[in-house]
Amino acid sequence: MEDKYVKEITAKSEDFSQWYVDVIIKGELADYSPVRGCMVIRPYGYAIWENMQKLLDRRFKETGHKNAYFPLFIPESLLKKEAEHVEGFAPEVAWVTHGGQEELAERIAVRPTSETIICSMYSKWIKSWRDLPVLINQWCSVVRWEKSTKPFLRTAEFLWQEGHTAHRTEEDAEEETLRMLEIYRDFVETELAVPVVKGRKSENEKFAGALRTYTIEAMMGDGKALQAGTSHNLGQHFSKVFDITFLDQDGKLKYVWQTSWGVSTRLIGAIIMTHGDDRGLKLPPRVAPIQVVIVPIFGQQKEEILEKSRSLYQTLKNNNFRVELDDRDEYTPGWKFNEWEMKGVPVRLEIGPKDLAQNQVLLVRRDTGEKISVKEADLIPYLTDLLEGIQTNMYKQAKKFMEENTREALNFEELKDIIENKKGFVKAMWCGSGECEKRVKEETGATLRCIPFDQEQISDKCVVCGKEAKKMVYFAKSY
Amino acid sequence: MEDKYVKEITAKSEDFSQWYVDVIIKGELADYSPVRGCMVIRPYGYAIWENMQKLLDRRFKETGHKNAYFPLFIPESLLKKEAEHVEGFAPEVAWVTHGGQEELAERIAVRPTSETIICSMYSKWIKSWRDLPVLINQWCSVVRWEKSTKPFLRTAEFLWQEGHTAHRTEEDAEEETLRMLEIYRDFVETELAVPVVKGRKSENEKFAGALRTYTIEAMMGDGKALQAGTSHNLGQHFSKVFDITFLDQDGKLKYVWQTSWGVSTRLIGAIIMTHGDDRGLKLPPRVAPIQVVIVPIFGQQKEEILEKSRSLYQTLKNNNFRVELDDRDEYTPGWKFNEWEMKGVPVRLEIGPKDLAQNQVLLVRRDTGEKISVKEADLIPYLTDLLEGIQTNMYKQAKKFMEENTREALNFEELKDIIENKKGFVKAMWCGSGECEKRVKEETGATLRCIPFDQEQISDKCVVCGKEAKKMVYFAKSY
Repeated sequence: MEDKYVKEITAKSEDFSQWYVDVIIKGELADYSPVRGCMVIRPYGYAIWENMQKLLDRRFKETGHKNAYFPLFIPESLLKKEAEHVEGFAPEVAWVTHGGQEELAERIAVRPTSETIICSMYSKWIKSWRDLPVLINQWCSVVRWEKSTKPFLRTAEFLWQEGHTAHRTEEDAEEETLRMLEIYRDFVETELAVPVVKGRKSENEKFAGALRTYTIEAMMGDGKALQAGTSHNLGQHFSKVFDITFLDQDGKLKYVWQTSWGVSTRLIGAIIMTHGDDRGLKLPPRVAPIQVVIVPIFGQQKEEILEKSRSLYQTLKNNNFRVELDDRDEYTPGWKFNEWEMKGVPVRLEIGPKDLAQNQVLLVRRDTGEKISVKEADLIPYLTDLLEGIQTNMYKQAKKFMEENTREALNFEELKDIIENKKGFVKAMWCGSGECEKRVKEETGATLRCIPFDQEQISDKCVVCGKEAKKMVYFAKSY
Repeated sequence: MEDKYVKEITAKSEDFSQWYVDVIIKGELADYSPVRGCMVIRPYGYAIWENMQKLLDRRFKETGHKNAYFPLFIPESLLKKEAEHVEGFAPEVAWVTHGGQEELAERIAVRPTSETIICSMYSKWIKSWRDLPVLINQWCSVVRWEKSTKPFLRTAEFLWQEGHTAHRTEEDAEEETLRMLEIYRDFVETELAVPVVKGRKSENEKFAGALRTYTIEAMMGDGKALQAGTSHNLGQHFSKVFDITFLDQDGKLKYVWQTSWGVSTRLIGAIIMTHGDDRGLKLPPRVAPIQVVIVPIFGQQKEEILEKSRSLYQTLKNNNFRVELDDRDEYTPGWKFNEWEMKGVPVRLEIGPKDLAQNQVLLVRRDTGEKISVKEADLIPYLTDLLEGIQTNMYKQAKKFMEENTREALNFEELKDIIENKKGFVKAMWCGSGECEKRVKEETGATLRCIPFDQEQISDKCVVCGKEAKKMVYFAKSY
């Protein structure tokens, strides 16, 4: 029987980056593939994505969005129509040049994002104000030929959803942009237990082709920022080059106002890096593929305990818990404890001879390590509350960590010192100039993550140039 | 108010092919895109696919399968490993040759199917008999650079699911292959109301790289066959070239036995061509995005009728019907009737002044045109039964059509006559030789669709060469 647990992972505190990769590979969330920069999402990792999809898709549909599917391929001429857009994406495009034996007359891009192909269709479909708004979302994969990659965070191909909407007025488009940002915030904080800062991107950091980009920024366990979702008000940038017009109620022909917004499988990276610890993953119960793992501890009564384990498994399954029974013979309970802790299962349910005799089970929390004996009769309501409690506690822990690692800087020296010698986010005042923003990036490696909606008046001077400050912003190193 | 219905479609009886395209474009299921051979699946069409996905995915999971995601890209060297496989797919591959500005050292295929990339991972993951079976499915898009295309039936890119499993023994693999074929049969007949013939493909028609291919074949409204789903026993063809071995319980190193199986968005084409009529689509209630459309008929009591319509809408929604309220002002009821009939909504619910006064509604069946007055108090149970009844009736109608258009041929002249002058399937005896199969194809355009599991002894001679017959088979022209 396998007793020694061999899937040791690097300690998070020692080497965060290696710990992250260890957790992914040994936890069987994903694996490297024979294709440069592409990863395989294994069933355990994919099940997290499926749970996330369900929770997000429901939110999209409740707000009137419908799913559709647009081609993977975009002809080069189409991709090039919006100047800023192509400038932003062309360097990372994978190009198809041959179909079968034949060379194509025009190169075709594998979509890096779908604004251009979707706009070409919207210009066909939208005629009248009655056709608006158009509220469409697409679940798909996109390709960006990145130089350096990291599982879930930056890969040549990744899975995402991209919403693309068209509206009658600028106000409608802005309202939609902010509505989707709020849906992302609510989803990420509620379902993934990852706290975020909500705000606007600077001109330098906005999406290629957007009028305004909004973002939610999360703090990872090493203090770096992760852009967890973005929502863009595209203004009329695309509608003008793609000629998407409608006859308004006043009889005038007008260009539509557009938005686009997306989140991707990088959110799985966010979960790992927000919640994990030295022993491995910690998955929030709401998206955990397995919420409860039953580990029988046989002793002298193997048959009875196995039978009870199976009956508990069925009871939990019938009550809609996502449950797994680990009745493998080839591993000791100790080995199994390590394995399921590494895989981040929120609750372990142990049942041994003593428990059997007393009609109880032992529950062990992954988030706190706390052990609780519960009478079988109370199990279902207790577990329901416990999972909710774990979800809440994980959010609180992460929120506390973010707050503790968010510091204020009143001048450039303080800003540099925090970025270099501490970790986390820096709140500072900013004059609004791209020059000052660039200087921070060049001298500290930190970028302007966002201009938060929740503004504070830390001082009245720009942290870089000392001139009159316009906004409080967040700086941080980022993924 | 728009009264004249302008979205006329070609009559099915006049020009089946044009009717098919009209229904898709005017019914807003899909649209042509600016990319050669690629289509856009619009929300109404995509919602059918989503309903199909839910019903299939549940069946996959109930039989122990898990979803995962493998890269879109396959290096050329990998695709070439299995000789028959590459021969089958290479002519239709879209090749990526550049990433950003840089030319790639090796060409990369956009996956036409994922056996090779998945096998490369399985050889890493599978070590012991304890790791088997591996039961993985993937929902994704694949690309086959086809010369001539038709929406849903044959497009350069299409959506599908592909299952890929690995087993310890040949028997286990064969059992899985047939299990999945049966899941497809059950799904297509039960949920899509499309009857099929279940059987095995001939050597000429099997999947490139398979040991045996099984298929379900459906009959379209013009009598042609549509391959609706296939399940392949791959034997050890791939495990030997990809070196997928496991240490068996007996201590010996063995190659795994594999299967793969898939269905695609062409099933949407199957629904259209099996059930549609001159007025347009007819959607089976179980996958219809809208099961019931409410059309208020205002008369003198617009406000009251609108209010009642909204309350009915809410009641139906709360009872989990997929319902839509068409309260648009700009169209007459007559226009709306045409529109929703064209879009194939199974039940129309009309409510006018007389209905309001008598606490009733008028239900109109799309499949039979029958009109039924139902008391509001009985609506929910009545509708539940009605939708089930429509589903059953649609299946029966299609089954009857298939039976009426399946004929026996005792010799080659009869076979040719039926294929040329009638339509549908031909049942005939076959000696088993590829030569005879080829002759049928060359001289009639029909292919051997399958060797059905349900065998009949029509005669003892091959329909082509007159030699001793081994099996009864189906010949038909096909999509």
